[in-house]
Amino acid sequence: MRTDEYNQAMNSILLARGILRRLRAIFDDLTLALARRCSRDGKLDGGLADAQQFAAYELALASADLLAAETALGDADDAPLDLRLALVFAVHAIRQSLARLDEVAFELAGVRDRGDAGEAGAARDVRHGRDGRDAGTAGDAAATRIALDALAACSEWAALRRDVLRAGSLAAVGRDVAETGGDVGHVALSDSLRMAQDAFRRFADDVVAPKAYEIHRHDLTVSEELLQPMREMGVFGLAIPEAFGGSAPGGADDALMMVVVTEALSEASLAAAGSLITRPEILARALLAGGTAEQKAAWLPKIAAGDPLCAIAITEPDYGSDVASLALRATRVEGGWRLDGAKTWCTFAGKAGLLMVVARTNPDRSAGYRGLSVFLVEKPSYEGHDFDFTQPAGGRLSGRAIRTIGYRGMHSFDLAFDDYFVPEDHVIGGAGGVGKGFYFTMAGMVGGRMQTAARALGVMRAALRAAIRYAGERKVFDAPLADFQLTQVKLAEMASRFAACRKLAYAVGRILGGGDGSGSDTSAASGDGRVEAAMVKLLACRSAEMVTREAQQIHGGMGYAEETAVSRYFVDARVLSIFEGAEETLALKVIARGLMERALERAAGAAASAPATGAQKAAPRTSAPLA
Amino acid sequence: MRTDEYNQAMNSILLARGILRRLRAIFDDLTLALARRCSRDGKLDGGLADAQQFAAYELALASADLLAAETALGDADDAPLDLRLALVFAVHAIRQSLARLDEVAFELAGVRDRGDAGEAGAARDVRHGRDGRDAGTAGDAAATRIALDALAACSEWAALRRDVLRAGSLAAVGRDVAETGGDVGHVALSDSLRMAQDAFRRFADDVVAPKAYEIHRHDLTVSEELLQPMREMGVFGLAIPEAFGGSAPGGADDALMMVVVTEALSEASLAAAGSLITRPEILARALLAGGTAEQKAAWLPKIAAGDPLCAIAITEPDYGSDVASLALRATRVEGGWRLDGAKTWCTFAGKAGLLMVVARTNPDRSAGYRGLSVFLVEKPSYEGHDFDFTQPAGGRLSGRAIRTIGYRGMHSFDLAFDDYFVPEDHVIGGAGGVGKGFYFTMAGMVGGRMQTAARALGVMRAALRAAIRYAGERKVFDAPLADFQLTQVKLAEMASRFAACRKLAYAVGRILGGGDGSGSDTSAASGDGRVEAAMVKLLACRSAEMVTREAQQIHGGMGYAEETAVSRYFVDARVLSIFEGAEETLALKVIARGLMERALERAAGAAASAPATGAQKAAPRTSAPLA
Repeated sequence: MRTDEYNQAMNSILLARGILRRLRAIFDDLTLALARRCSRDGKLDGGLADAQQFAAYELALASADLLAAETALGDADDAPLDLRLALVFAVHAIRQSLARLDEVAFELAGVRDRGDAGEAGAARDVRHGRDGRDAGTAGDAAATRIALDALAACSEWAALRRDVLRAGSLAAVGRDVAETGGDVGHVALSDSLRMAQDAFRRFADDVVAPKAYEIHRHDLTVSEELLQPMREMGVFGLAIPEAFGGSAPGGADDALMMVVVTEALSEASLAAAGSLITRPEILARALLAGGTAEQKAAWLPKIAAGDPLCAIAITEPDYGSDVASLALRATRVEGGWRLDGAKTWCTFAGKAGLLMVVARTNPDRSAGYRGLSVFLVEKPSYEGHDFDFTQPAGGRLSGRAIRTIGYRGMHSFDLAFDDYFVPEDHVIGGAGGVGKGFYFTMAGMVGGRMQTAARALGVMRAALRAAIRYAGERKVFDAPLADFQLTQVKLAEMASRFAACRKLAYAVGRILGGGDGSGSDTSAASGDGRVEAAMVKLLACRSAEMVTREAQQIHGGMGYAEETAVSRYFVDARVLSIFEGAEETLALKVIARGLMERALERAAGAAASAPATGAQKAAPRTSAPLA
Repeated sequence: MRTDEYNQAMNSILLARGILRRLRAIFDDLTLALARRCSRDGKLDGGLADAQQFAAYELALASADLLAAETALGDADDAPLDLRLALVFAVHAIRQSLARLDEVAFELAGVRDRGDAGEAGAARDVRHGRDGRDAGTAGDAAATRIALDALAACSEWAALRRDVLRAGSLAAVGRDVAETGGDVGHVALSDSLRMAQDAFRRFADDVVAPKAYEIHRHDLTVSEELLQPMREMGVFGLAIPEAFGGSAPGGADDALMMVVVTEALSEASLAAAGSLITRPEILARALLAGGTAEQKAAWLPKIAAGDPLCAIAITEPDYGSDVASLALRATRVEGGWRLDGAKTWCTFAGKAGLLMVVARTNPDRSAGYRGLSVFLVEKPSYEGHDFDFTQPAGGRLSGRAIRTIGYRGMHSFDLAFDDYFVPEDHVIGGAGGVGKGFYFTMAGMVGGRMQTAARALGVMRAALRAAIRYAGERKVFDAPLADFQLTQVKLAEMASRFAACRKLAYAVGRILGGGDGSGSDTSAASGDGRVEAAMVKLLACRSAEMVTREAQQIHGGMGYAEETAVSRYFVDARVLSIFEGAEETLALKVIARGLMERALERAAGAAASAPATGAQKAAPRTSAPLA
């Protein structure tokens, strides 16, 4: 980049930061207004929130875009190319967020004129006596609308768009991206993290990548040839402290190490390498959170050694993301429990020798999540897509892999438990753990989401690099594809998404590492990174769909052929927004709810600490930039 | 819909039409400005156009959105639900187009300040002596910018967004969509078209759908059980007049019949039914356009009977969309020609007994597209994924199917021709047809694009209907998914896209039918529907990706399972933007170029007919609403 280009980029960055500050203030106002609309007596209300799902969904998507843009632009010491990529992402994020917040603002302003909402909505309003409160909200919303419109029309925003989105400018970014081979989105890493990144990238390239096609094509089970070296590299013990035989670096690097390793492995294969860490992490965190001293000592070293391999059985056929309603029954018998019922989407259940099973120990369904416990269920390890195991005393566990369009290598199973016996001491937490299964399960969820974001990063990086390689080699109309402006623009946009997601993921990983190292806090309003982990999962997974799709387009027909790796990246990417918290559930139940709870708490806090100035000062920051 | 709702919808429609008229005028100004930037002496120039690829791409995408919105809103007699769906589509289309045209306008306004464009660009400008002309263009562009900003900020546009995008309003549309089971996007059809639609939808449901999963899952070849009834229903002769044994209805219904049948069959399976018509149509149109009387009499009845089945070999490994550069060599020998070289992505080449092969008969590569001829190549029919055929005299043709992530059932082959003999009379047009292969090939391209749009419609309709069914059955958090606002909003948006694409496709089909019935005009500037056919292909294929993706999300994990049809719709939809003219090629080489040529011609016409008023009146309408 020449000096004048650099100066212009710096100028644009100042503009973008200013616009983002304004947008953040508007976002915070809207979040509080939506929270008030969805609450009764200062607490969120499920029924009221359900009537605002669309606004909440748009708010959640905007929150992820905004936070990623703020974070990407936050680091002034960044490499020049990364700064320009941050600008490209920020302009798209601002534009998209303006549109989404527009919808939220209309929704909040529309109380007095809700002919379209149907009679049910109007009747509910009357029943809830909301008119008084809504009048205030609508007034605030009108003010927010004015701020939103002013921002959308201001000349600084126009200048920023012109400077960043001009084809010549985008194409120049794309050419520079191509020159790096896709090595963009740099983050500061400690020495040990950088060494791990180098080692796992090399391993992924040399050992995993050559086997990835066959595993996908023929839906094979991950082989010992891949598993054994990963055991030796400590992959299965990354969430387990050294005291328990694990390889967790300890301290601030704990959460980041898993992101680094997962990203590196996912670049070669999502299912044959990049997803192997998720299961032992979730189980290890449940044991660390709730296991007895004996259980930790007995199980953690084995899990860390990858012997047995493990799998997590939570989801049931009738209850996708609704953990509190789980129905698989655990009945007390002499010396332990018997399990009866079905689980589904239990990835790796065939090969695993140990399943973490969430079951209902309190037969009273109305106990909800308080009736759940976590069991450590042993079984033999099987290759292939089906198994059927009968215990000596007659208990039975059978599994059948669900064929999927991608994410192949570990297989995801339907499981049927039939009078399956589990000994007393295999309930996590022992007698004291009964009924606490929900909390132990949640302990691993934040990590699972961060890992899923990291998996998305790996897939995106692979797709971006493949697209760059192909565009350099493939000639059309007598010139390499990479020489065409449209290709360059596409590469710039793909790279900008990847880089922004990467910076956000590592920033959130750093926050999580700054806690107690377990990432296990389950409070929504604590600002500890739980909501942010969901944001980065949401954004990175959606971005992976977009980046792999564009990489396919660049490959033309070859992008649709199974032998071209990019077609696998595409079908693999599709699972990311579906599993580990479906996009919609995360957006509504974790992100929007978490942001609204924070907004209400801070508004209450602000009102309490400064009663004289009143509600005007009650709009708090919902999230801080993470850089 | 209640009366007040209906009145509000009618009011919104008037608003939307007004905004679209303003946007169309801006679009036309920008098209002309871009055309001038890309032309020299009144003619488009390849090099100048290459420097504006991004602007041209955005222009093309906006053109499709705008035309679809105009068309969807054009029919005041429409069913009330379709009108509300048209509004939803229009608001999204307007918003998206404002953003795209914003980029085009910045691009055109940015001449005086192109620091980012790099020195090469600046040097080229100087070399081409473009400063004088650009100053005028930049002045016009500034005026256009002002109009664009004014439109984006006007209160009518805000009112329209508020009325249409409010969650209550979108959710009500979604509930009504669900109640129809997905039967939206109504178009007026003649009796014979409606009967065909009913018959083929029934056949697709009863006969094709039950076999679709197995064919996809095991990558089987379409079986005779499906092919034979389709032969009997006249599927292979839809583009062939009755005089030649075909089943073309004749007249205005010709183009529409193929859309109707393709859409209905594609709803059950893209590759095992919905794509069977494309190949005989392309070949039949080439024969109708260029075949000798003997060739027509000999071949058309056989093609119509589906005996032999046929395939089209145009694409070569080194030349994707660049037909003029094709290299497969045809060498004159005693009694005919010998073919040598490779083709790729030749769908159905194994099962087919007749290949339409475009080959270079003039060895001088600089002759470009004027050196090409079309051959009718006979071969035995094979099941499976590989074949290798040797002629008695030693010529050889071998094929290997390329494994793909979807679009399975016909298989797409790599072909190798090795001294393969073709008799003299198998060149389309005989001696007089030599060197005219490009034109004969192009005769079928418009139909191919319309059919691809129809294929996208079928896949979308299937995905929408599956999503509605699943949302009604599946309970989450104790209520059917369909009861949740976010699901309803998603259904409304999916349905609005499907309906808008459908209305546009049928409107374009009607234009094509209004010509000579062959749809074979190759002039870009004639306004005969060629450019519009590319627009509907572009839009419908992109929309199919979005609709199938959202249908998967509604299915949750099951959407990723191969046994759930929606997962097949998703991978099938992905091919649509890649084949039959890749999205980027269509956008740049057909749509943007066609629109710019029209703009230049009309501007020249306007200037010639009214020299006194000059260039101010020279901004013509690039497309008329099609309803």
